[in-house]
Amino acid sequence: MLELRDKQFLIDCGEGTQIRMRQMGVKTNRLGHIFISHLHGDHVFGLIGLISSFGMLNRTADLHIHAQIDLEKIMEVQLLYFCAELPFKVIFHPINPRKYALIYEDRSVQVFSIPMKHRVPCCGFLFQEKPRDRHIIREMIDLYQIPTWRIPKIKLGEDFETNEGVIIPNALLTTASELPKRFAYCSDTAYSEKIIPIIDGVDCLFHEATFMDEELIRSKQTEHSTARQAGEIARKAKVKKLIIGHYSARYINQNELLNEAKAEFENTVLGEDMMVYQI
Amino acid sequence: MLELRDKQFLIDCGEGTQIRMRQMGVKTNRLGHIFISHLHGDHVFGLIGLISSFGMLNRTADLHIHAQIDLEKIMEVQLLYFCAELPFKVIFHPINPRKYALIYEDRSVQVFSIPMKHRVPCCGFLFQEKPRDRHIIREMIDLYQIPTWRIPKIKLGEDFETNEGVIIPNALLTTASELPKRFAYCSDTAYSEKIIPIIDGVDCLFHEATFMDEELIRSKQTEHSTARQAGEIARKAKVKKLIIGHYSARYINQNELLNEAKAEFENTVLGEDMMVYQI
Repeated sequence: MLELRDKQFLIDCGEGTQIRMRQMGVKTNRLGHIFISHLHGDHVFGLIGLISSFGMLNRTADLHIHAQIDLEKIMEVQLLYFCAELPFKVIFHPINPRKYALIYEDRSVQVFSIPMKHRVPCCGFLFQEKPRDRHIIREMIDLYQIPTWRIPKIKLGEDFETNEGVIIPNALLTTASELPKRFAYCSDTAYSEKIIPIIDGVDCLFHEATFMDEELIRSKQTEHSTARQAGEIARKAKVKKLIIGHYSARYINQNELLNEAKAEFENTVLGEDMMVYQI
Repeated sequence: MLELRDKQFLIDCGEGTQIRMRQMGVKTNRLGHIFISHLHGDHVFGLIGLISSFGMLNRTADLHIHAQIDLEKIMEVQLLYFCAELPFKVIFHPINPRKYALIYEDRSVQVFSIPMKHRVPCCGFLFQEKPRDRHIIREMIDLYQIPTWRIPKIKLGEDFETNEGVIIPNALLTTASELPKRFAYCSDTAYSEKIIPIIDGVDCLFHEATFMDEELIRSKQTEHSTARQAGEIARKAKVKKLIIGHYSARYINQNELLNEAKAEFENTVLGEDMMVYQI
């Protein structure tokens, strides 16, 4: 669950997602859009339960699901049987996982698909904040007696012209806003340098790290990444922070995975169930 | 999960069933048959994940699912997409939830459907052990020099005739085996006395207790039972032990439900997640 600009975005929905959210006390009233990377069960099986529970909780807001086109067909029969009288609409938006493309946009956020390299068609997602308004310097607004109706444009960077025709440059009236944040989710995928230009410099990268590097052959067969490879991608893409995850069940002590990734990219953290990470 | 005569039977399969089993270290290699009471999500949504994981664990034994006929259609698309190359067969056996009928039988166990009273067609299940073989008294076998090939029939109750034509009654050669166990699962259902003759005297009854009796009206609307009603059924059916469950999420302290059922039927226990009950 990604929270950005007071909105929630759910990325993938494996079995038990709604149970975990309940355990964590996550409210979902700001969740309008779900993004599904690919049609493997561990990324999809929790969807019908989540939708069904939303129905029982009398959700009324539309729920948008961005996924490969086949998901709608897969969900169709289930929705018919288990969610016949939903008090809200479920709207599917097909995405082409083979293309880097803008797939969602609102007032403050853009989402792009990132083609992954996996056994089945799969895409990651890049979440990109739009620039925030600049901050008004209240004292200067008072000094130049700027009318309220001019403020929105000044927040966007416009200069102000006084009645006497004097231009007050925007830099005197405002201060810069926080830099827009960028978050990339890359799972499931084999090592692929093609994604580097897309995720270049993101504030936070989630990259799968299914195996240790000693399982490199197995990771290639199954088209997953090793922890070392996740770190290598993070380093080459000059991201600010790396979260690894999607570990094979064979690893009881996941710190080995963390250490392997850290050897490539120091600012790596271990993605763990029920944890919250600040970007 | 019911264990009976070294076999496992799974009754219903809500979301997260496989996760709970893993948490409890439950091995499923003796699970061949799953019984689904009705087609509401909280009894079905965990099925596809369970089957999918069995595939990854390279299960080879057939998996039998006993359910209303529509379940096969619901699962069909999902199995096609998510479980295309299962190394085992999934075999659906349709059951008619409106009939009390023998729906499964093997060497040692019989299972009957029990019509429930619910918003949608629904049946409970009665598991009934077949009588076990009588126990041989080793000393008597030696005394009468009974050949090994005669033993199986003697275990079933046959007398033995010596070469001299003397009849040795079975009661001298064997002792009685344990009484066959009977377990009934009744969920989801409104209060219904029609089930009493079917579950009469069972060793253990699981009966749903969604509400407290103060919510009697709501329980009738939704066709669920109150804890008091579950106790009343247990008392009238003279069962040996009652386990209640399927509580509405509104009850944080489920001991109130227990106390209400106990007022009707003393030997009641609270069904709880991840608990094991001996019958």
